[in-house]
Amino acid sequence: MATFRLPTHNLRVRRILEQSARLIYQHGFESTSMQQIADACGLTKAGIYHYIKTKEELVVAIMHYGMDLFEEEIYQKVVDIQDPVERLRMAMMRNIKLTLSRKEVAVILNEPQTLPRAAQRELNARRRQYVTLLETTFREAIERGQIRSIDPTVATFSFLGIILWTPNWYRADGRLSMEQLAAEAFDLFFRGLAPS
Amino acid sequence: MATFRLPTHNLRVRRILEQSARLIYQHGFESTSMQQIADACGLTKAGIYHYIKTKEELVVAIMHYGMDLFEEEIYQKVVDIQDPVERLRMAMMRNIKLTLSRKEVAVILNEPQTLPRAAQRELNARRRQYVTLLETTFREAIERGQIRSIDPTVATFSFLGIILWTPNWYRADGRLSMEQLAAEAFDLFFRGLAPS
Repeated sequence: MATFRLPTHNLRVRRILEQSARLIYQHGFESTSMQQIADACGLTKAGIYHYIKTKEELVVAIMHYGMDLFEEEIYQKVVDIQDPVERLRMAMMRNIKLTLSRKEVAVILNEPQTLPRAAQRELNARRRQYVTLLETTFREAIERGQIRSIDPTVATFSFLGIILWTPNWYRADGRLSMEQLAAEAFDLFFRGLAPS
Repeated sequence: MATFRLPTHNLRVRRILEQSARLIYQHGFESTSMQQIADACGLTKAGIYHYIKTKEELVVAIMHYGMDLFEEEIYQKVVDIQDPVERLRMAMMRNIKLTLSRKEVAVILNEPQTLPRAAQRELNARRRQYVTLLETTFREAIERGQIRSIDPTVATFSFLGIILWTPNWYRADGRLSMEQLAAEAFDLFFRGLAPS
């Protein structure tokens, strides 16, 4: 049975989810009320209840929205790239960019949430698709001799760890642009620390 | 002004913090009551209030406890290692091991929390000490010619990203032991993917 999802092609729905994510990110789930969310969206409380019934539903909806963005902006854009290393490079670039530019949604999507089982299962299945793509890509690159024979699972989650940790430290007004960060992280991951 | 901290050398206090961390990790902050925490610790509600007044205080106390463990098991054990690359290797080993063996405490410590400002400041200062050690170590290794000239900040947070992401995917009953994971992750980070 499918869990609650909102039609995220609807712009008003996207706006509600983004405003809610921002509030939850800033003030915490517990301290954010449906009234505050309604206010931030310029809706009445009745207006917001038209879309969403509980805060739990809202978190699931934000997470599915994060997955929608993720599939649109990353998965679909890289899945057809022929060269596996180039596929990894583009995935890292796009993933860092999306994670930092939609920080509030990304953080809620990626931090451990206590969700109803069905929702957890659905979201895990959507996540799994990307993990499988990455693992397969590492394997392909090994087979072609483009990279050395590392453990594709450890490589995949190290790759994701580097990317998904960026919201915890990167500052948009700091020394590095997002593009520089992505290029530096890819270089680090690809060539490692060893002296050349 | 120092924020609320419990005496974590007291074994009963450690037990309360570990039980609470487990409950919060499993059921979420919002769904965990002080009554459940008291029950899990074999205390009455009055008994638990002797140590702790609110759930917010409890989260701060768990985070400081996480930092205590962290300083005991990692920082103090590696800070005096002379060789910078060996210092990084030991830090990664110990950090992965602590993060996975005290998963509940580590996750609460490392996920974004909405805390009172003073508590946030104190915890950030404690975190900063480790980040500075890592950055300095990368710089030292570059100066000695042990590693190539990478960005020490990106290297530090990529290093931490790889480590702190492990609770999201590693399974203790899986194919890799913690030691194997740590060795593989260090090799990946140090030598990168590039074919040798």
